[in-house]
Amino acid sequence: TTNEQRLWDSLMQMGEIGGTEKGGCCRLALTDLDKQARDLFTQWCEEAGCTVRVDKMGNVFARRPGKNNDLPPVVMGSHIDTQPTGGKFDGVYGVLSGLEVIRTLNDHNIETDHPVEASIWTNEEGSRFAPAMVASGVFAGVFDLEYGLSRADLDGKTMGEELQRIGYAGEHEVGSPVKAFFEAHIEQGPILEEEETTIGVVTDAQGQRWYEVTLTGQEAHAGPTPMLRRKDALLGAARIIDEVNRIGLTNQPNACSTVGLLQVFPNSRNVIPGEVFFTIDFRHPNDEVLSKMDAELREVTAKIADQMGLQMKFEQIWYSPPVPFDKGCVDSVRQAAMDAGYSHRDIVSGAGHDACYIARVAPTGMVFVPCENGISHNEEENAKPEDLHAGCNVLFQAVLNQACN
Amino acid sequence: TTNEQRLWDSLMQMGEIGGTEKGGCCRLALTDLDKQARDLFTQWCEEAGCTVRVDKMGNVFARRPGKNNDLPPVVMGSHIDTQPTGGKFDGVYGVLSGLEVIRTLNDHNIETDHPVEASIWTNEEGSRFAPAMVASGVFAGVFDLEYGLSRADLDGKTMGEELQRIGYAGEHEVGSPVKAFFEAHIEQGPILEEEETTIGVVTDAQGQRWYEVTLTGQEAHAGPTPMLRRKDALLGAARIIDEVNRIGLTNQPNACSTVGLLQVFPNSRNVIPGEVFFTIDFRHPNDEVLSKMDAELREVTAKIADQMGLQMKFEQIWYSPPVPFDKGCVDSVRQAAMDAGYSHRDIVSGAGHDACYIARVAPTGMVFVPCENGISHNEEENAKPEDLHAGCNVLFQAVLNQACN
Ligand SMILES: NC(=O)NCCC(=O)O
Ligand SMILES: NC(=O)NCCC(=O)O
Repeated sequence: TTNEQRLWDSLMQMGEIGGTEKGGCCRLALTDLDKQARDLFTQWCEEAGCTVRVDKMGNVFARRPGKNNDLPPVVMGSHIDTQPTGGKFDGVYGVLSGLEVIRTLNDHNIETDHPVEASIWTNEEGSRFAPAMVASGVFAGVFDLEYGLSRADLDGKTMGEELQRIGYAGEHEVGSPVKAFFEAHIEQGPILEEEETTIGVVTDAQGQRWYEVTLTGQEAHAGPTPMLRRKDALLGAARIIDEVNRIGLTNQPNACSTVGLLQVFPNSRNVIPGEVFFTIDFRHPNDEVLSKMDAELREVTAKIADQMGLQMKFEQIWYSPPVPFDKGCVDSVRQAAMDAGYSHRDIVSGAGHDACYIARVAPTGMVFVPCENGISHNEEENAKPEDLHAGCNVLFQAVLNQACN
Repeated sequence: TTNEQRLWDSLMQMGEIGGTEKGGCCRLALTDLDKQARDLFTQWCEEAGCTVRVDKMGNVFARRPGKNNDLPPVVMGSHIDTQPTGGKFDGVYGVLSGLEVIRTLNDHNIETDHPVEASIWTNEEGSRFAPAMVASGVFAGVFDLEYGLSRADLDGKTMGEELQRIGYAGEHEVGSPVKAFFEAHIEQGPILEEEETTIGVVTDAQGQRWYEVTLTGQEAHAGPTPMLRRKDALLGAARIIDEVNRIGLTNQPNACSTVGLLQVFPNSRNVIPGEVFFTIDFRHPNDEVLSKMDAELREVTAKIADQMGLQMKFEQIWYSPPVPFDKGCVDSVRQAAMDAGYSHRDIVSGAGHDACYIARVAPTGMVFVPCENGISHNEEENAKPEDLHAGCNVLFQAVLNQACN
């Protein structure tokens, strides 16, 4: 089996790059810290005898050769970018458990038929650059390269520029044959922990729709401007935020709806806000319900803007439909958990993952492990070394299963 | 009378310092642009034969001597800081009409008994540093000097540091006897324009209460976190914003209530907001109603925070009670408008002004002129040269009236 301590030590060492006082991690995509983390991963992989290549989206692949290197590789991996106040496990666990599988193959001098690769996917979080999973999306042909490279952060810097700047704009074309893809990840939700189950066998991922909304009213003085003459863009946004929440609540079970980002202009205490920009994140495992939520949102936002005399720019910037994972890969994960005697259950992923896009071009499976209080996207995110180890062992067996025949 | 063209030209020249593409002005308090504008005012005043002094709050006084310079001066003035997206008239009109009065006294070789001064008051807007009218407040003994110098912007820079940096931390003690104070200002509201009236004789200013609220919930992932487990600080803020609006609407006539500034943490699309900071601005001409609004606000914010499981830090950071201006000064303004044949009416100021604080230590009056569509704190703020001229003529006569006996 894989080495629990080595995996944990690698996670802790990587977590220092961008580590925060509260024990979390702030390592936004394509920052200097992202570069440092990529460099460290590359060094570790080369030390493990791998050859590392980088594609034009900055995706990194560390290859351990197989008996037949003309065969497509079995790939493991996830991302190393984090949220602004993220944790030390989201994403990086999937990358470093991939490396741990390779180190374990080395320990036991195991020769696989297929090459085995550990990978980093660029900008999975969608926090600095929207949408999420951009680079795995390009790999899967969901987005074209130009779209991927032109995604810009709130300061207008593009992924293409930032990849150049940190030296990770690779030579390789984006996209190549993959025998199977596996991603290990913390659950980021409360189910496994509450049910005291070690392994989540991920069968599906829920669908997502992301929106950007700009409301424009009229800036005016907070003192002498009578209430009834106002066009207050923030008041409009406030009412929409409440409706976004209502749509989530009335489409239970399983619907989620969130306004996570909001900016006010000019953002001055005694100025009625003239413009507000905000985002909406809608999720549901059932595409029909997700469409119904979309229709409800469009109706209610238009109504509020209209009633309040606000101009509205409303745009769906991302739609990622529900994903069923590959039956063979899912079975490999379940079998590995059973063989090792871990408690396990089937589970639907609430978050998007690079695996969701890779699933379009290769048989794909995911392994979930519990995280403390179900909390992620928070500096307090935490997971137990033994659970992380269990997930890594399941990953190891599932990969062996796919790489050796 | 005063010189319409000269006043307009000075306003336009000053408006270039921080002038924006949309024809507005962005000249935040104690920035390099504020320094440039102060330097230009100082130069103009010295060219007009004045002696300029600066006090420890950076307030600037340009003195034209009278027959008896042991008598306290009649002071005119306002502020030259602007909102982030402000106009070319708010504040600076009161400063430059003061200068225009001095230039006109020179043109006609008029000797007044009392010295006459044109003044700039530091950080009136309250946008970069809260609260508003800090430096006139120190002059009036409402705030002590230490409080004034320690006001910090959102980056933590204090007024004291920034005054040093731009070279306007003067030698003079803050506060000295004033025979009478007059401030000319655009109305910043719609009344004069709608009634086609040229001069507003300001009898009172309404009261204000400013608050800062921080709501703390729990950051979590927007995907796998079930709706009913969430502690969404932005949803809480949204509900409070709607209640702030309701309190304004249910305390008509005359109540105003505004949330102008709001910041979300960590402000990422797929993270449930863990913390939101925002401000509330309440106004009413009647102090009892303002107190009732305050009580309603405290009740409803506590209730929402409690219902939603959010922690709340709620602080009233500023209370400026309604201000009655000096009967003698108000009469001087009304008389000057009548003598010049300008249409005029009594009016209550919706905005706070430096005059509101100076009124505590000296007889004080204000002159309002119309502004286009009643719009201020907006780059589209505009006023007619002839109205600005009329206000300046009224200021001139009111000052003469107080300075010559
Ligand atoms: N796993 C994860 O946090 N992905 C970010 C994309 C999403 O919001 O689902
Ligand atoms: N006149 C003016 O805009 N003052 C700013 C302070 C306030 O908000 O009333």
